[in-house]
Amino acid sequence: MGLLKETLDNIQTSDKAIVKKAWERIDNLTKPIGSLGTLEEIAVKMAGITGNLNNEINKKNIIIMCGDNGVVEEGVSTCPQNITAIVTNNFTKNITGVCVLAQQVNADLTIVDIGVKDDFNNPKIINRKVAYGTKNMVKGPAMSREEAVKCIEVGIETVDKLVKEGYDLFGTGEMGIGNTTTSAAVLSVLLGLDSDIVVGKGSGLTEEQYKHKKKIVKKAININNPNKNDMLDVVSKVGGFDIAGLCGCFLGAAKNRVPIVIDGLIASAAALCAYRMNPLVKEYIFPSHLSAEPGAIYAMKELGLEPMLNLKMRLGEGSGCPLAFNIIESALYTINNMATFEEAQLHRKHYVDIR
Amino acid sequence: MGLLKETLDNIQTSDKAIVKKAWERIDNLTKPIGSLGTLEEIAVKMAGITGNLNNEINKKNIIIMCGDNGVVEEGVSTCPQNITAIVTNNFTKNITGVCVLAQQVNADLTIVDIGVKDDFNNPKIINRKVAYGTKNMVKGPAMSREEAVKCIEVGIETVDKLVKEGYDLFGTGEMGIGNTTTSAAVLSVLLGLDSDIVVGKGSGLTEEQYKHKKKIVKKAININNPNKNDMLDVVSKVGGFDIAGLCGCFLGAAKNRVPIVIDGLIASAAALCAYRMNPLVKEYIFPSHLSAEPGAIYAMKELGLEPMLNLKMRLGEGSGCPLAFNIIESALYTINNMATFEEAQLHRKHYVDIR
Repeated sequence: MGLLKETLDNIQTSDKAIVKKAWERIDNLTKPIGSLGTLEEIAVKMAGITGNLNNEINKKNIIIMCGDNGVVEEGVSTCPQNITAIVTNNFTKNITGVCVLAQQVNADLTIVDIGVKDDFNNPKIINRKVAYGTKNMVKGPAMSREEAVKCIEVGIETVDKLVKEGYDLFGTGEMGIGNTTTSAAVLSVLLGLDSDIVVGKGSGLTEEQYKHKKKIVKKAININNPNKNDMLDVVSKVGGFDIAGLCGCFLGAAKNRVPIVIDGLIASAAALCAYRMNPLVKEYIFPSHLSAEPGAIYAMKELGLEPMLNLKMRLGEGSGCPLAFNIIESALYTINNMATFEEAQLHRKHYVDIR
Repeated sequence: MGLLKETLDNIQTSDKAIVKKAWERIDNLTKPIGSLGTLEEIAVKMAGITGNLNNEINKKNIIIMCGDNGVVEEGVSTCPQNITAIVTNNFTKNITGVCVLAQQVNADLTIVDIGVKDDFNNPKIINRKVAYGTKNMVKGPAMSREEAVKCIEVGIETVDKLVKEGYDLFGTGEMGIGNTTTSAAVLSVLLGLDSDIVVGKGSGLTEEQYKHKKKIVKKAININNPNKNDMLDVVSKVGGFDIAGLCGCFLGAAKNRVPIVIDGLIASAAALCAYRMNPLVKEYIFPSHLSAEPGAIYAMKELGLEPMLNLKMRLGEGSGCPLAFNIIESALYTINNMATFEEAQLHRKHYVDIR
């Protein structure tokens, strides 16, 4: 608990003085005020995070938390459980969706085994296994409170280490068959929403299977009766190792004042968990795409974030992050390199503020 | 009229046999079927356009049509008319929004003076001036039918030339004070929508000015009474040189079987004009962002396109295109480089199609 408590205590608000200066500078660039929309907001938020007026990204990393979920034995996924291990291994071969997308934008991957059921003999997979998968949450808590804390601390430690290596932009990914089920359960409890609203079809369920998945999520919540005001109670009872680990990544990034991007449903649930532990976290978080999973948008709204991309993606793995990295880097480059009104022989008074 | 007619006659449907093969290939990649959403659709559409299963982009160009609008004398914009000439000139200095965004993704700009009120002494601006600005459309047609055809042919010729130079992905931009007014008028007529619905605040109007702009658009339509089934009648009476020129770019790209990206409101209106002349055009068009101008979404819907980006941008200039180029190139790279199920030691049957 030491590292978690220390991290929560050390998360500070972003630099509001620089934010003010950044807006002044941007409003003096040669364009109608506010007309670059979210690109302007990204550049300003980044200034607040780093404390610097001009920013550029040097090293990007997508942290992929891999873990198995006991609830899979209830038949909530069309994929057999061993897909978690196979795909985790495939991340190291550069052949999955996130690998290829990350490669295209020159981002590195950090693959963490935080609780896969199988053992790996692969030096590219970091072994931080908390257990061989969670327990089946319809029969009791998925994990102990201590295990949840341990997962969060794995996330924090992973970020701490990567920040020391010079990474200055993070993405969040995961692999774990059954994790749209656990994420829906976590979101349902934390947001006080009926689980039927947030449960989606995951990697591909028939209508029949979809109904069953909804029933299972409801059952898991009813049996465990998690306390919605106690994030650790929620994530340990109806969450997963991956969600808890990514929650730690968000906390760690905020503590280190480094920006971090949400991918899809699972990362959204993890970001919400982190936000519930310390609301300042959201000042360090960027959204990416709007996941096709129905729960994601509710988490985004609660976090006050609006997805930049609408690509109907539902792959997970962190695959939305490289696309968001592109937009963030375009935003920073644009704001760093556009001319001011003076340089452009224009007058600011011609452009009225309708922001 | 020769080139326009020839172009319209030579636009062919995209290659449906390759489209089928592309889907087969994509559905055999190691991911739940359909889970890369729009990225998959982009890769398939591109295959249909080029006739090749695998594609990559070699040279990108954003064509910026610059022209003045007579209706500006009605006070529809906060910007004085000479901003058109100043910003057109600034495109050649690499300091505006689209310049910087294009530079970041290694795209070139083609700046066409299709009807700016001032003369340029700048070799980087291509002089294809049809007239020194359009006439004031609340007093009669903005241009003659012959001028509209000439503008469209300038667009076609511009694309023809750039295709010969090896460009294989286009973006569409514009500069012309007053062109959100003309675009709203064109969209209102072509879509049969009340002009109040499609008129927006442009580069920044007060509520009072906004009301006035709506009145002017209504007046222009009433006075000219354009025939909604005759695109040339609509664009000549209540359009602009930039809209007509970009309409030609869309037609030219389709004829040459080269993809072309829509930026904001003005390019959307132009794309709709091209689509009304030959519906096959839409098989060659990609959307980019959802413009903050209210008319854009109606044009997108009519074209059957869904914006990839939600960035609240309303700069114009073609500034959304470089961001869309990034997504298109990510999509192509991903589909070209992901492993198949076999290579990934996975079985396709584990992933059910919920597309």
